[in-house]
Parts: sequence; C-alpha cells; structure tokens
Amino acid sequence: MPLTPEQEAEIAAQRATPRPTLRAVSEGMEAHLYRAHPVLDHGFVRVIDYMGDDAAIVQAARVSYGAGTRHVQNDEGLIRYLMRHWHSTPFEMCEVKLHVKLPVFVARQWIRHRTANVNEYSARYSILDREFYIPAPEQLAAQSTVNNQGRGAVLGGEEAARVLALLKADAAQMYDHYQEMLSQDGQQGLARELARMNLPMNIYTQWYWKVDLHNLFHFLRLRADAHAQYEIRAYAETIAACVRDWVPLAHAAFQDYRLGGVTLSARAVEVLKRRLSGEEVGFEQSGMSRGEWREFCEVWG
Amino acid sequence: MPLTPEQEAEIAAQRATPRPTLRAVSEGMEAHLYRAHPVLDHGFVRVIDYMGDDAAIVQAARVSYGAGTRHVQNDEGLIRYLMRHWHSTPFEMCEVKLHVKLPVFVARQWIRHRTANVNEYSARYSILDREFYIPAPEQLAAQSTVNNQGRGAVLGGEEAARVLALLKADAAQMYDHYQEMLSQDGQQGLARELARMNLPMNIYTQWYWKVDLHNLFHFLRLRADAHAQYEIRAYAETIAACVRDWVPLAHAAFQDYRLGGVTLSARAVEVLKRRLSGEEVGFEQSGMSRGEWREFCEVWG
Amino acid sequence: MPLTPEQEAEIAAQRATPRPTLRAVSEGMEAHLYRAHPVLDHGFVRVIDYMGDDAAIVQAARVSYGAGTRHVQNDEGLIRYLMRHWHSTPFEMCEVKLHVKLPVFVARQWIRHRTANVNEYSARYSILDREFYIPAPEQLAAQSTVNNQGRGAVLGGEEAARVLALLKADAAQMYDHYQEMLSQDGQQGLARELARMNLPMNIYTQWYWKVDLHNLFHFLRLRADAHAQYEIRAYAETIAACVRDWVPLAHAAFQDYRLGGVTLSARAVEVLKRRLSGEEVGFEQSGMSRGEWREFCEVWG
Amino acid sequence: MPLTPEQEAEIAAQRATPRPTLRAVSEGMEAHLYRAHPVLDHGFVRVIDYMGDDAAIVQAARVSYGAGTRHVQNDEGLIRYLMRHWHSTPFEMCEVKLHVKLPVFVARQWIRHRTANVNEYSARYSILDREFYIPAPEQLAAQSTVNNQGRGAVLGGEEAARVLALLKADAAQMYDHYQEMLSQDGQQGLARELARMNLPMNIYTQWYWKVDLHNLFHFLRLRADAHAQYEIRAYAETIAACVRDWVPLAHAAFQDYRLGGVTLSARAVEVLKRRLSGEEVGFEQSGMSRGEWREFCEVWG
Repeated sequence: MPLTPEQEAEIAAQRATPRPTLRAVSEGMEAHLYRAHPVLDHGFVRVIDYMGDDAAIVQAARVSYGAGTRHVQNDEGLIRYLMRHWHSTPFEMCEVKLHVKLPVFVARQWIRHRTANVNEYSARYSILDREFYIPAPEQLAAQSTVNNQGRGAVLGGEEAARVLALLKADAAQMYDHYQEMLSQDGQQGLARELARMNLPMNIYTQWYWKVDLHNLFHFLRLRADAHAQYEIRAYAETIAACVRDWVPLAHAAFQDYRLGGVTLSARAVEVLKRRLSGEEVGFEQSGMSRGEWREFCEVWG
Repeated sequence: MPLTPEQEAEIAAQRATPRPTLRAVSEGMEAHLYRAHPVLDHGFVRVIDYMGDDAAIVQAARVSYGAGTRHVQNDEGLIRYLMRHWHSTPFEMCEVKLHVKLPVFVARQWIRHRTANVNEYSARYSILDREFYIPAPEQLAAQSTVNNQGRGAVLGGEEAARVLALLKADAAQMYDHYQEMLSQDGQQGLARELARMNLPMNIYTQWYWKVDLHNLFHFLRLRADAHAQYEIRAYAETIAACVRDWVPLAHAAFQDYRLGGVTLSARAVEVLKRRLSGEEVGFEQSGMSRGEWREFCEVWG
Repeated sequence: MPLTPEQEAEIAAQRATPRPTLRAVSEGMEAHLYRAHPVLDHGFVRVIDYMGDDAAIVQAARVSYGAGTRHVQNDEGLIRYLMRHWHSTPFEMCEVKLHVKLPVFVARQWIRHRTANVNEYSARYSILDREFYIPAPEQLAAQSTVNNQGRGAVLGGEEAARVLALLKADAAQMYDHYQEMLSQDGQQGLARELARMNLPMNIYTQWYWKVDLHNLFHFLRLRADAHAQYEIRAYAETIAACVRDWVPLAHAAFQDYRLGGVTLSARAVEVLKRRLSGEEVGFEQSGMSRGEWREFCEVWG
Repeated sequence: MPLTPEQEAEIAAQRATPRPTLRAVSEGMEAHLYRAHPVLDHGFVRVIDYMGDDAAIVQAARVSYGAGTRHVQNDEGLIRYLMRHWHSTPFEMCEVKLHVKLPVFVARQWIRHRTANVNEYSARYSILDREFYIPAPEQLAAQSTVNNQGRGAVLGGEEAARVLALLKADAAQMYDHYQEMLSQDGQQGLARELARMNLPMNIYTQWYWKVDLHNLFHFLRLRADAHAQYEIRAYAETIAACVRDWVPLAHAAFQDYRLGGVTLSARAVEVLKRRLSGEEVGFEQSGMSRGEWREFCEVWG
C-alpha cells in the first residue's frame, strides 16, 4: 500500500469538495482525480489536473479549418483525420498533470521524453523514504538471447530466490548506511546531497509530470509497446487507462493508428504488393536484412 | 467591435453553464473565461482554459521540497523565493489557453516564442475575413533617430493623414483582388493557398495559443517591455491583466523581480559600489560602451 | 538571379580558403558550402555550416550500445535499425545551418517547426528589398474540388494572365507606397516597424535556420510530401538533395522508411491480411471512412 | 586515470589527421578536440565537435540587422549588445558536442536541462564498468545549517574516514552482486535491464551531449554558480574553460553580464537609489524578507 492513512485522508478531502467551473469538464477524468492508481510494489500514478477534452481538440482544429469549410463533420471523423495525417497541434491543446511515484531507474528512462514539465522530489533538500522496487518473481527474467536489450525466460525458482535475497539485503544495507552517514547523533552528519549517492537505483522517487496529449501519446506509443521494459510499461498502461476515460475519441484513434498500426518501409510495401498479386516472396527476394525480415514476418507471416 | 452577435451569443451560452469540478479553480480567472478583451482596432484576447493557480505552484514545488523541510513557509514567501532563484519548473505547472485575433505582422513576432502550442486559422483551407489593422493617429510615429528598431515622434497631421489613406486604400484593394482571384464566377478560381499571398501583413489572423506560466512570464517580460513594438505590447498588457487575476502571488513576484527588476553587469556593479562608497564615477571611469552607459544612466542617473 | 555580383564574390572568397580541422568532414557537404541553390523565382538555400556525418550517427549510437555488444555491425545496418525503430537521438547528433531566402507566406508555414534555431532579417530594423514571388504560369492552379487545402487543374491562359497581372501590379504598388511612407524627403518618415505592415505576403524575407538531422527529417517528411504546398516543397526538395550528399546512409534509410514508407492503421492491417489470405475486401467490409478508404486504395488498389 | 591505453591511442589517432574544411574554424577549440579533460576521480569532458565561432554569432545577428544599418560596429560591441539585451537567437547559431563521463547522481541533475540532445550509454543493453565516484576528503562536508540544499563544514577526520569506508565497501559489494546476478555460469543470468537496479548512484555513466551556445550559457550560469552542487560545478567549470577558448568574445560577455552580473528586484533598486542619495536603509526599511535581505547584503554590504 503506497499511501499513509494521512495521505488517503488528504485525497478524500480533495475529492469531497467539487467547485463550479466554466471550463471544459471531462466526467471520465473527474473520476480519476487525486486517486492513487497502484503500479509495481510501491509506486502509483495520480491525476492531479487536466485541461480540455475531445471537444477541445476539435475546437482548436477548427480555428485552422474555420469559416467556409464543411460544417457537418462529426468530432470522431475529424479526430481520426487529424491522427491519420499527423496533424499534431490540436492534440497539444489538451494537457494533463500527474503525480507519479517510481523507481529511479524507471525515472531515468522516463525523463528522456523532454517535451514535458517536471518537478522531482529533491534528495539534495530532503531525505528519501525507505522504499525499494523488488520485482515480483514472475518478472525476474533472464537476459534475452535474441534481443540485447530485452528479457528472455523467467528465472528458475532457486536462482530467482538468490536474486531476490540479494536485492532486498543490499537495499536494506544501503539505506541503513545512508541513515548512518546522515545522522547528527554524535557526529556532524554528511550533507544530504552527498549521502544520496549511496542509494541504489531501485529506490523510489516521485515527481509531478505535466505533458500535452500529443506528447503523451508519443510517450505511450514507445513505453506501452511490447518492446519497452516491463517496469515503465506498467506505468504507461496505467496512464493509458486514464487517457481512455479522459478523451475516449482521441484514445480510440490513437489505438487504431498508432498502437495497433504498422509502419512499412518502401521495401516492405513492395513485398506486400507482390504477395497480393499472387507472387511468393521470401527473404531472398525481399531486399531486407535478417532483422527487418524477422520483424516483417512477425506481422505478416 | 470584433465579434458578431452570433459569436457574442455563443460566448454568453458558454458562460451560462457552470459545471462541478474537483480541479483547482481560480475565481479570478473564471471571471475572464471566453470573454473577448478588445485589443487594437479589431483584435482580441480570450481566455479559453487554464490549469492551476498559485497553490498549484506551491504544491508542485513542495514535491521537490518535501518531508524533512520547514513546514511553516507561507505560499507568498515560497513563490517569491522560487522567482528570485530562477526555479522555473513549479511555474511550468500552470497552463493557459488563449484565443487571440491579431494582425499577421504581430503574429510573426509572437510565433518566435517557440515553447508554446499553436493552432492558427489556415488560409490554405479557408478564406480570411476583410479586417485590417489601421493604427490610431497617435500611434503613427516616425522612425526613431536613436533606436534603429523603434519609433520617434508622432507624425504631423498631414503626413499621418497621407499614411492612413494609403494603408486603408491598399488594404481594400488587395482584399478586392484576393476575392477576384478566388471567385469561381465565370472562371476556375485560384487556389486559396495561392491567392492569400496578395494580402498585406496588417490583415488579421487568429489562433489558439497555449503556454505554461513560466514561458508566459518570459513572453511578457520581453513583450510588455517599453522597448517592444506597441502593437504586440498591447496584447501583452491585456494578457498580463488576466494573469494578475489568475495567479496574483506569482504575478506580484514577477512584477517585482522581472518587470520592475534590473540586471547589472559586473562592470555596473563595480560602478555602483564605488558610487556608494562616495566616489564620483562617470562614463570615462566606467569601462562601459556609450550604449551601456546611456542605459545605465536611464536607471541610476 | 538572386545574388548581386558582390554577394557572388563574397561566396567565392569563402570557398577559396580551406582550413585544416580535426572534426568530422563530409566531402559531399563541403561541395555545397556557401553556394546559393536557387529556389522559386528569387529564393535560395545556402548551406552555411554542418556538424557530423554518417559516422557521427553511429558513433553516438554506440555510446548507448557500448562494450559487451556485437562489434561487427556495419554502419549502414545500424543506421537502418535506428531509423526503423524510431531511435531518434543519434540522428540529433548531426546539425546543419542554412541561409534561406523565401516568401513570407512560406516562412509562416516553415516556422511552425519549432525545434530549430532561427535568425530572421528584421523589418523593424531594416528596409526589405523589392522582391516578390510571382508564380510560374504552370503553378497557377485552381482550388482543388476534393481537397480543401490543395490545388486542382492549372488555370486557363486568360485567367492565369489576369492573376499574374494583379499579383505584379499590386506588389509594385504596395512597395511604392512602403517607400513613400518611409521617405524622409520633406516629411518625418514613418517608422519601419509600421510601414512594413503594408507589404504583401509574397515579399521575400531571409533567415538563418539551424536544425538537427532528426528534426530536419521530420520537416522533410511533411514538406517534401506530395500534399505539401508546392512553394515550400520546392525548398524541401532542394534541402533534401544537400542532405543526400551530406549523410548518404541516413538519407537512404529516411527515403526507405519515411518518405517511401506507409503507415497502416489496425483496420488497414486487418484488411490487408484478409486480402493476403485470398478474401475480397471492399469499402463496406473495411470499417474505414470514405476518406480513409480512398487513401488506402491510392496505395493498395 | 579515466582512459585505457587503447582509448588514448584512439584519441591520438583522431588528433593526428587534420582535413581541409571550408567551414568556420576556431583554433582555440581545435586544440581541445577529442582530448579527455579529467573531472572528479574517474570522469572526463571531451569536445567531440563544434559548429561556429564568434564571427558566426555576428554573421547570424546581421541577417536580422541587415542592409540599411550602421556598418561600423565591431564584433565585440555587437556581441555585448546582444548579450545585454537578451537577444538569444544569434548565440543559438553555435553548437557543441561533448562526450562526458559522470556519476549517475550528477547525470540526474544535468538531464533536467531539456534543450539539448543526449545519447547515454545503455545499461539495458550493456554492462556498466566498475567505476564509482568517491569524494576527496576535502569534499566530504556536513549538511549546511543555513541552506537546506547545501554543504557546511568539512567533516572531521574520523567521521570522514567512516563515510569513505562505507561508500567504498558498499560500491564494491553492490557491483559484485550485480556481476553475480548477471553471471551465466551455472545459472540463466538475470537480464541486464533488471540487474542494473542494484547499482548505487555514484556509479559512472557516459553520454554524448550536444547543445547550442545559448542553452550552454544557461547551463553554465546555473551549474558553474557557487550554489550548485560541487560535483556538477566541477564539470561546468571544465566546460566553461573550453568555451572561453572556443568563442572568447561571447564568453567574456557572458562573464560580465551573467556570471558576474547581478539581478535586482524593484525593491532592491529602490533601496540602492535611496542609499545613493545618502539615506541609511536597513532591513526594516527595505520591504524585503530576511532571505532576500541576506542575499542583498552579500553583494552590497
């Protein structure tokens, strides 16, 4: 359980006091506000604020497609058109602010998405909590033999047990030493900005993260993908579920054109056209590299 | 009057239907929502949406300044501290979306602020309205003799009259020709994306513009400045008035540290220190260029 | 001819004095440096500087794929892999700086690509030259009847002649009036920042534009596309030709995966799979909208 | 010594083969190319590439300040003018690419500067080296009692010895366990993307970092500042020394207006003016908070 009773009470209080607004309201997103959606063993995603809804995307796009254009185009059709043709600016008109608690090694991947605003809890200024990510046994996988940056088979019980024991003992010991170095009991106490360097990268940090919908979709496309590391994918999927309730039409278009879509190279288009016309086309005739061909076959057989 | 009765009715309708929300609400900003604040002769600024308030800045900053720190620091003090020390990320946690109608030559200056989201009315897709910026006589100024990119004295009545007559007649003629080229009456009609090239840069365009508070302050610092061109300054001042009602504490800090503040070079610091210790320091002793010295004296005499 | 003899001489002088450097050098790009590639009737693209080459992309990627990985992976294979899997950061490690002369209405489209650095010639500060884009007759097309933001058939001779006459006469008159307003002969002379508003949007401006290779590819994908307006496409194609000489491997991968590639929605993948298995699938069975289906058939018949 | 003999040989080879170029060349920067400037105990900064020089800043600015302006303005004067008036775009026309080896906790601060390009060595893909930052004894300081995010007095010898012993032993143990978990000797071997979570934040990582001069100055202003954490300041100062050799005029202006400059609030301007006119103004009359007043007195006494 990631939250203390005090924190739970604070969230309940925030959810107890609706106020009137003239802004666009998404009922689906109001249901998520402030609630902590658990992720991994101690992490969470909380929606703190949002701006806009499906209609706001259409409204912004129609500034660009104003007077003199066809009026009878429903919102869904326009949103799908915008997504299909990579008109990204109307999706940028929606914004969301999240409070996320996550292990440092996940935060390091996440931060590479630069087009977002971030306020992270400062370990120069404050003392981090004793909370570490320890994977569930079914997540303890061996190095993949085909993918240099992926996982293979789940570890056997004994090896898994050894790994878990190491991770737990090391985290505990490092945190004990962190506290010993900080302690001002009978000594000066090391500066926080120095002591933190002894903490392992599975310690939890937290941040406020604010991003527009276009850049969030880009994040989700890369991080909710099957090739993303499981630990960040768990966050991406939790966020995606909130997005679906927030902007259902935009999310459906994203699902169809991005997450479920496929990008073909010119060579791949050529191969498919020849196949459609009845020709047998194998690896030798494809002009592709081994890796490309393997990826091509995963989709097209 | 920039809006049609239909548009006014639409705005009234939007303002008539408050809905409950659990998000942060700024009463000051709610009063502005959707209303058209007139700027120049046909332009306007409308607040379409906003995210956050003064408390949201503090809330985001306190993620970075969490457990283990002093609790009794009031919001105003923290906001002033953040502004003074250039901690920009908490201000990025507020966001605003505006609908702006503005002349193209102003839009060209404005768009140079890249850290914002924009949807502009498309003249490839739609036909622009017959609306042009014609300066008020008191704004018709001569080229400055001291500042290559500024205005000097107001033009004399006869010269001003000649200029106004030219601007009005040319705008009318160009728009007539725009319509003639577009017309499909007895001819094919030129494509919109080509016909638009005949329009002058005082024609009005419009866009949705979304920006976070930190970048908006940067915009205001440059564009609400006395050295900015009057026409964009008029927009900046209208926006600044909305910001003051939205986040009064942040706006006051911005006023004190940025708009009303002064940046001194190392040389200028040196001169001031010598003066404070009773020394007479003039241009020759300053180590400054003529331009620097003139700007220094504007502040310090 | 866009350049004066003095400007030509300056370019020749710059090209006459090679100097030794230890940096990565692209022979293909050295051949372009400073030369003015003509675009449209008075415009140009000049390569002013560049950083990196194909090897620099590989070198940067190998920081991320360092010790312990397969060593025998040739540059072309790695570059194609990076492009296929949307690993954009290694392409960001190359940079190019261009000097571009272009009509204002093209500049307004171009500037929407925000991830670039720009210094534009200032009409607040300086007086613009008397140069306007007048389309070649074969570019004078009617409004498209199927695409709200595109061109259809070329205009008939008489209509084209009328359009050209209007564009030329209007540009000349506006520029004459611009000069009259600026003139300090017997009058004060209007400030440049005001007089410029009377100029039409086919007047030429110029800027320095600096961008990394990843963002340049994004620009080229959108602007060298058949749906882009001809006038900006002319610039994109000129730039693409320089890029091909600069980073031939990266350009070939871009050509295969982006320009010549196709993005399929989940629905389109489904239709193709059914067709590949021998099924007849038409519009009614596709689940697509009319527009999607039309675009699908353009590629797949 | 951060580099192996093989790496040293590679650098020597790169420096041995100058090639002719027509681009702008900075002799001062050529002397730095590829060389490893040591930072901290195992880190370094290497200049990999650069674009532009002082003249390139002026050249870009003069597009904005072209025909019709004063010609006799020397480069230094213009560069100082641009810096003084926050005209940032000409400085963006220079670019530099660095290879940096740095502890993870420093990398986490550094990456918050978003306007830069980064390729980091991937611990999903590769195995990190056994190298950890262990502070020099004179850097082992106690938590500051006046600044929540700073250091106070240096630790006493015995306490320092205890801290160093802990840091060294923990790093060694964590790395041993990292290797044990990865090992495929008699077991499957944990995936790299998981094993890395057991590493402490003083382990070294490396990346390619590319940034324009304007954003680099912003980085240096914040990170070469006395309030920055020592460990990142060490990198900032090494980079600043390279910048001084690369663009000496721009660096001098930066030194005078930014690093050595002072920003005054409107209240502080008021206090200084009253003092200059002979008035005694103390804390009570200043209108400042305690913190502001303390910072004011650090500069003005």
